[in-house]
Amino acid sequence: MRYFITLSYNGKNYHGWQIQPNGSSVQETIEKALSTILRSDISIVGAGRTDTGVHAKKMIAHFDTDIEINTTELPRRLNCFLPSDIAIQKIEPVADDLHARFSATKRSYEYHLVTEKDVFCTETAYFYPGVLDFDAMNEAASKLFNYIDFTSFSKLHTDVKTNNCTIYEARWEQVSPSHWIFHISADRFLRNMVRAIVGTLLMVGTKKISVDGFCQIIESKDRCKAGTSAPAHGLYLTEVVY
Amino acid sequence: MRYFITLSYNGKNYHGWQIQPNGSSVQETIEKALSTILRSDISIVGAGRTDTGVHAKKMIAHFDTDIEINTTELPRRLNCFLPSDIAIQKIEPVADDLHARFSATKRSYEYHLVTEKDVFCTETAYFYPGVLDFDAMNEAASKLFNYIDFTSFSKLHTDVKTNNCTIYEARWEQVSPSHWIFHISADRFLRNMVRAIVGTLLMVGTKKISVDGFCQIIESKDRCKAGTSAPAHGLYLTEVVY
Repeated sequence: MRYFITLSYNGKNYHGWQIQPNGSSVQETIEKALSTILRSDISIVGAGRTDTGVHAKKMIAHFDTDIEINTTELPRRLNCFLPSDIAIQKIEPVADDLHARFSATKRSYEYHLVTEKDVFCTETAYFYPGVLDFDAMNEAASKLFNYIDFTSFSKLHTDVKTNNCTIYEARWEQVSPSHWIFHISADRFLRNMVRAIVGTLLMVGTKKISVDGFCQIIESKDRCKAGTSAPAHGLYLTEVVY
Repeated sequence: MRYFITLSYNGKNYHGWQIQPNGSSVQETIEKALSTILRSDISIVGAGRTDTGVHAKKMIAHFDTDIEINTTELPRRLNCFLPSDIAIQKIEPVADDLHARFSATKRSYEYHLVTEKDVFCTETAYFYPGVLDFDAMNEAASKLFNYIDFTSFSKLHTDVKTNNCTIYEARWEQVSPSHWIFHISADRFLRNMVRAIVGTLLMVGTKKISVDGFCQIIESKDRCKAGTSAPAHGLYLTEVVY
């Protein structure tokens, strides 16, 4: 039987989602907890890989087991067993051919940025002091819909076959006078893509480049032209749709 | 000239507001920063003392100096100098007889409680798993308006002359399915009072005592009858009125 786990985590203390040779990962932490509780070696497959320090308000992972599972009791036991920075919201049986990664049709991220020092967001939002032109940043963000090849915002030398992504949402929302959230959704994301887009939008916001310049960077398909990646601790995976 | 500082802090790494023989305090950290920047020994007086681990969304403190101050520039310089868990919002000249502590007419606190594991609130809200009767807790909270002597919720052996407080607000607000905030305002608060009230309201919420029992605890003027203090990390000073 295949099960979907819905979970959240604060990425601060993890070397990302995926199991790493050095440093603990969210995936490994959950696998160990599940394997201990179910007394059986359990492997889980996540909807995507988040980098070191990136958070998830909602991540989906699947695992297979023949062991009978009480889907009310197991999340409760896992939450007691897991550290305070990983929380299981739900475990539910799904069709055997539903794959947490390959069956996902849409993923959403948020990037949180504060323009004033905020003592309650030091580890969960990027503090960028100074004036940003969010109108220009939103205009540039809307240009993302015109493109499908995002080579300019991908990590170099990855093994993906295509750098094509369909963008469904890309906009900055102001949630308080000094707190902004960049919402972005797509069918798929390249490694490092959201942070590279945010970093390049910040170049627009500080008038280092124009909106046209932003478009030229995408058209160049040259990662070196894009901005520095925005820091990991402002980024959250927020939704995975199947 | 006297100045008011408006500031916020995350109390996690501090032994409270007030200077302590062991461990760093918010007051000391700010005094050192101010004294360094102004090249003069500066003492500050806060609107109140918060305990170890308690946060402030808004704290007011005053200091006196004859040095000419640029009230636009100084907050900026202080924020660069101070650690990321203390932020200065404003510095403004006030009348010489306005006292941050003694002139305050009203103080407000929030107590944050989550009933589900929340990976983004582990250090800023109290995680209380299980079912709480918030209707009963709100009914009990409303009884606070009927009393002025809160000896039952005070620390024993303090040097205050009276345990009388006038309560202006006391209510639980639900801000998300599993996140509740207790709002309380009064002319003054006794040491440990808010956390003792929250701890006793939790006894109502778990049906260990009734609303009448809550009133009897207040009337007994006996600290030993009240509930255990709720943990510090859920508590925030949020407003001081003059």
